[in-house]
Amino acid sequence: EVYSTLKSELLHDPAFEFTDESRKWVERMLDYNVPGGKLNRGLSVIDSYKLLKEGKELTDDEIFLASALGWCIEWLQAYFLVLDDIMDKSLTRRGQPCWFRQPKIGMIAVNDGLILRNHIPRVLKKHFGGKPYYVDLLDLFNEVEFQTASGQMIDLITTHEGEKDLSKYSLPLHHRIVQYKTAYYSFYLPVACALLMTGENLDNHIEVKSILIEMGTYFQVQDDYLDCFGDPEVIGKVGTDIEDFKCSWLVVKALERASEEQKRLLHENYGNADPACVAKVKELYMALDLQGVFAEYERTSYENIIKRIEAHPSKAVQDVLKSFLKKIYKREK
Amino acid sequence: EVYSTLKSELLHDPAFEFTDESRKWVERMLDYNVPGGKLNRGLSVIDSYKLLKEGKELTDDEIFLASALGWCIEWLQAYFLVLDDIMDKSLTRRGQPCWFRQPKIGMIAVNDGLILRNHIPRVLKKHFGGKPYYVDLLDLFNEVEFQTASGQMIDLITTHEGEKDLSKYSLPLHHRIVQYKTAYYSFYLPVACALLMTGENLDNHIEVKSILIEMGTYFQVQDDYLDCFGDPEVIGKVGTDIEDFKCSWLVVKALERASEEQKRLLHENYGNADPACVAKVKELYMALDLQGVFAEYERTSYENIIKRIEAHPSKAVQDVLKSFLKKIYKREK
Ligand SMILES: [Mg+2]
Ligand SMILES: [Mg+2]
Ligand SMILES: [Mg+2]
Ligand SMILES: [Mg+2]
Ligand SMILES: [Mg+2]
Ligand SMILES: [Mg+2]
Repeated sequence: EVYSTLKSELLHDPAFEFTDESRKWVERMLDYNVPGGKLNRGLSVIDSYKLLKEGKELTDDEIFLASALGWCIEWLQAYFLVLDDIMDKSLTRRGQPCWFRQPKIGMIAVNDGLILRNHIPRVLKKHFGGKPYYVDLLDLFNEVEFQTASGQMIDLITTHEGEKDLSKYSLPLHHRIVQYKTAYYSFYLPVACALLMTGENLDNHIEVKSILIEMGTYFQVQDDYLDCFGDPEVIGKVGTDIEDFKCSWLVVKALERASEEQKRLLHENYGNADPACVAKVKELYMALDLQGVFAEYERTSYENIIKRIEAHPSKAVQDVLKSFLKKIYKREK
Repeated sequence: EVYSTLKSELLHDPAFEFTDESRKWVERMLDYNVPGGKLNRGLSVIDSYKLLKEGKELTDDEIFLASALGWCIEWLQAYFLVLDDIMDKSLTRRGQPCWFRQPKIGMIAVNDGLILRNHIPRVLKKHFGGKPYYVDLLDLFNEVEFQTASGQMIDLITTHEGEKDLSKYSLPLHHRIVQYKTAYYSFYLPVACALLMTGENLDNHIEVKSILIEMGTYFQVQDDYLDCFGDPEVIGKVGTDIEDFKCSWLVVKALERASEEQKRLLHENYGNADPACVAKVKELYMALDLQGVFAEYERTSYENIIKRIEAHPSKAVQDVLKSFLKKIYKREK
């Protein structure tokens, strides 16, 4: 399996002389944080690459390389999550305690996050070092990481800085956070990796990027919706966006539609962990028919994305984008 | 001034749509963390580049580019220091409170560290994007960052993990931590940047790298020595390596030379903040004549480095290395 190969290479990287202790440390840290997610992002690279090759059989080498890029995205994700959990003081992740909460880890997890991040260029150098698109890959990962960290920054400074202030929350702010914090690395990056592997110049695919960002935004709106209205049995967790004072699409829409009276109720109850407060917010969401508003958003958003996809000149690219859209349309988890 | 130019470009980077709040946040964060150091590493790039050009007048463009690379190293340093202070739970840095201890910052400082790190490829892309050595610059910064984070890792897991255990400390471990955590980015990186600017291939400069790493090691041994035996008035701080249970060259040498009885004394008192314990350790250092051992180390280390420098075929490269050595030989701060 590709993960084991990459891990073993990283644990024997000639650029660093490991001590036995540090090699064991990195191995345990990787196994805890890198696999074990849904691997959606990683698998998307291979799926997209296959579609771009239009049915032509892939060589073993191509499969390995596409998988390696997929794993690089999983590594990137692990790096963001390890550090995000520290910043959010979270308790669990993927059904186990957050890495920094493990015994004897604590703030060493900050550096472990950096190690995860630094593994990416090591993998890229080793396996793509001679390719004509090597420098574009480096630029791509750098740009997307910059955008993700920037999105995380606006999320952090609006959610955590000072006292809770609902009046800062708006649709443009929600859109900006989602676009930068999630959509670039989760939606654009896998497809961009596949495009680079086929020899494409990303500057010629601005529209593809824009469509993927719109899909990523749609995905996050669903995520916000399911956090409140999804079935905990199905989504695998109990949502806490209301308690956590999140800049969720729901609260933004509620603010947009609320009377002065209802706004007051939101300001008084949003971000409070008391179940009675949470219940009041949910009642208000119902009263404002946010379920209907969401259904309408989902419909128009889907139609708009489909229209944009079908306007694209390349059938192969259309297939890539449609396969993404299919995975998320009307999802319940 | 180059710093202001780079900062202004970063605050208007088209790859991210800043909110007013986030632009102000980044500006304040940069001003707090990036300038204000001694700028040794940054200035070394220009000094080295000048020497490599053997007296030829530099164009304004060359000066700007060499300065920009110098600032990238300062940005890298700021990134490491912001995160190191969080991991070490430090109180002050460069005479002011650590960034994460500022009001309303806290763990957002983790992401600020990432922003600092992500600024480096933005600067490189903007100013070096078309240069023939662009990909080598990216590789260089990536490799050096990986090595620094790896050195930091062995430092963290030996110093912080579990109970204090002096028996792990040895000269090879000390050497490994210093080499990776400090020498690569502080000594090798500035010269490597200058070499790339002159069109050199770094693969042909393995010996230069090795000499610079040896100088970096020598520099850190001095740092460890001055922490205990330097004049606080001159070095600008009161050393606390003994209290902090640091893997210092002094404790490693002491362990090497101590009798069983003296080892016991070290084990009992090292890493204890009680001034009486610190005094006992210092007395032992004196009894073992570590001042004499250091003087001898300094002499042989200097001689060895000079011999290696003079064996180098290029006079210009010799000058670069000698100018580094001159800055640190017998330094008292
Ligand atoms: Mg979180
Ligand atoms: Mg977060
Ligand atoms: Mg959510
Ligand atoms: Mg420190
Ligand atoms: Mg430290
Ligand atoms: Mg020191």
